[in-house]
Amino acid sequence: MKTIGDLGEFAFIRSYLKKQFFPRKPNVLHGIGDDCAVVRMSDQCYSLWSADILCEGIHFDLKTTSAEDLGYKCIAVNVSDIASMGGKAEGVLISASIPPKTELEWLKNFTRGVQEALLDYDICVLGGDTSKSRKDLLFSISIQGQVSPEMLKLRSTAKEGDVICVTGLLGASSLGMELLQKKLLERTEGENECIQAHVRPRAHLREGQFLASYSALTAMIDLSDGIGGDLYKIADESDVGFVVDVNKLPLPSYLENLRTLGKKDYLSYALSGGEDYCLLCTIGSDQYEEINKSFKREFSRDLTCVGVVTGKEDKVFLHNGEPIEWLNGYDHFN
Amino acid sequence: MKTIGDLGEFAFIRSYLKKQFFPRKPNVLHGIGDDCAVVRMSDQCYSLWSADILCEGIHFDLKTTSAEDLGYKCIAVNVSDIASMGGKAEGVLISASIPPKTELEWLKNFTRGVQEALLDYDICVLGGDTSKSRKDLLFSISIQGQVSPEMLKLRSTAKEGDVICVTGLLGASSLGMELLQKKLLERTEGENECIQAHVRPRAHLREGQFLASYSALTAMIDLSDGIGGDLYKIADESDVGFVVDVNKLPLPSYLENLRTLGKKDYLSYALSGGEDYCLLCTIGSDQYEEINKSFKREFSRDLTCVGVVTGKEDKVFLHNGEPIEWLNGYDHFN
Repeated sequence: MKTIGDLGEFAFIRSYLKKQFFPRKPNVLHGIGDDCAVVRMSDQCYSLWSADILCEGIHFDLKTTSAEDLGYKCIAVNVSDIASMGGKAEGVLISASIPPKTELEWLKNFTRGVQEALLDYDICVLGGDTSKSRKDLLFSISIQGQVSPEMLKLRSTAKEGDVICVTGLLGASSLGMELLQKKLLERTEGENECIQAHVRPRAHLREGQFLASYSALTAMIDLSDGIGGDLYKIADESDVGFVVDVNKLPLPSYLENLRTLGKKDYLSYALSGGEDYCLLCTIGSDQYEEINKSFKREFSRDLTCVGVVTGKEDKVFLHNGEPIEWLNGYDHFN
Repeated sequence: MKTIGDLGEFAFIRSYLKKQFFPRKPNVLHGIGDDCAVVRMSDQCYSLWSADILCEGIHFDLKTTSAEDLGYKCIAVNVSDIASMGGKAEGVLISASIPPKTELEWLKNFTRGVQEALLDYDICVLGGDTSKSRKDLLFSISIQGQVSPEMLKLRSTAKEGDVICVTGLLGASSLGMELLQKKLLERTEGENECIQAHVRPRAHLREGQFLASYSALTAMIDLSDGIGGDLYKIADESDVGFVVDVNKLPLPSYLENLRTLGKKDYLSYALSGGEDYCLLCTIGSDQYEEINKSFKREFSRDLTCVGVVTGKEDKVFLHNGEPIEWLNGYDHFN
């Protein structure tokens, strides 16, 4: 008998769930397949919906993650889905499956981290559920947000000729996770930068809203699986291809050093490390300069251009001008 | 160090989460503490939100539950929360934490059960998330619905003098679970009735909407933890008490037989068995007769009156006229 482990998570969602649960209601404008579902509430207001699971042993390790950081991250990664649609986050439902041995002190610290994120992103907890767990701690968060129809950005609307941009550094989080697992006595500033990116990811909610106000911004997604995975999602949904110059990817100083030294190890972090939670977007190429200028004024850094949208036959990452072999994304089940 | 196992689920929610996450937004009319959160969308429309976890080894046993039944139940128990507020269900997010060994066939059967429930309650799947699990299968569902302000019913608005009513049979589901665990070769009709109630609970969505249209209906809740637990929630939130005559509780034929034979074993199923998923409501006593008449016309059965709302000093279940000792509700963690 075939198992989900044989098939893989994305294949199961793509090949089965998306078709099976195609929403049949007229007010559901987009169902499974983007960062959020989009439901029409009125002519002026669309409601956004998304969910994320964080599971012990898969998404976090209690030995290396503090309760407070984990609480913060649970909220931030959900807010990131709202950010990628150009929306405003509103409220979350938090469900938790908890082993009885879990210390109340740990749970209080967790809720403190949640509370911090609620303040940072101006959202509130609407409810949730709790249950005993026989083994792993698990948090399942649903988030709801709003967006006006003219601000809504999707994965499926990138256009050939657009430039491809990212709002932050790539690869820091996955490297940070590795560094955390090595119990070093002392850490450099560059190492700490990556660790922070892993334990306290920041949702680019303000950046998302800023960018969504430009009609020249054609498509957007948040980088949870690495640009080497998530850019394929934009390409597949928009029926386009891409050429990305990996030499242009903005990197944390630790990986930037590796790149300068000519060491190719940086590539796997930058391309498929995952959990960067910055935004990847496509922009009409004649508008990029102007949008970047305002972005820089607003956020004191560049909206980095890393490639161009092409016809669907190309899906290329160039390193020093040469195409590199790249496998599409990350899969929990494989 | 104190653990959540020492404190218990309800105590943790009551004493900590409710205070910690008190929502501070003006459009959130009710946060944690009722079956759903209530968010004001417009003068005519409130949005309802709720979440439920179903976890292997806690809420279901894969040896005794079919994939299809479980899929149906995951949706029905969430719809039940919307029903209890007088609302209309709209969409769900389904998140699943899945062991890699899970067979695709099982998952397909599960989604078939989900699909059936979607049709029964006229809702759609808006999205969700999937993740690997190291041990148990877990489903975490969030549901969203709508209600008009004049239809909204809460737990906190029961009034002294009201009558207490239930829309269905009590104790069938918990007895059904026990019967499933005994591998009997043949089962009576009465036993099968209870098993069906356990594996295929029906959300009383139509009943909820019907009852909510009466302003004399003062408070409503769905029975997930048994009347012996859930009635305390109405009493606590409404600051009232109750006297319930357990001889009047509507029972499935199997338990009815026990009661007729004078066997007190039926009491624990009927009072605290849990997972009945019918509705418990309070109604202005002078309106009960009329409402029951229309209920009977609509649903071909009685809206059974089982007791009265009293001052908060009384919280009494009477059996043959004598108060019985009763412990408040069920707690996963204890």
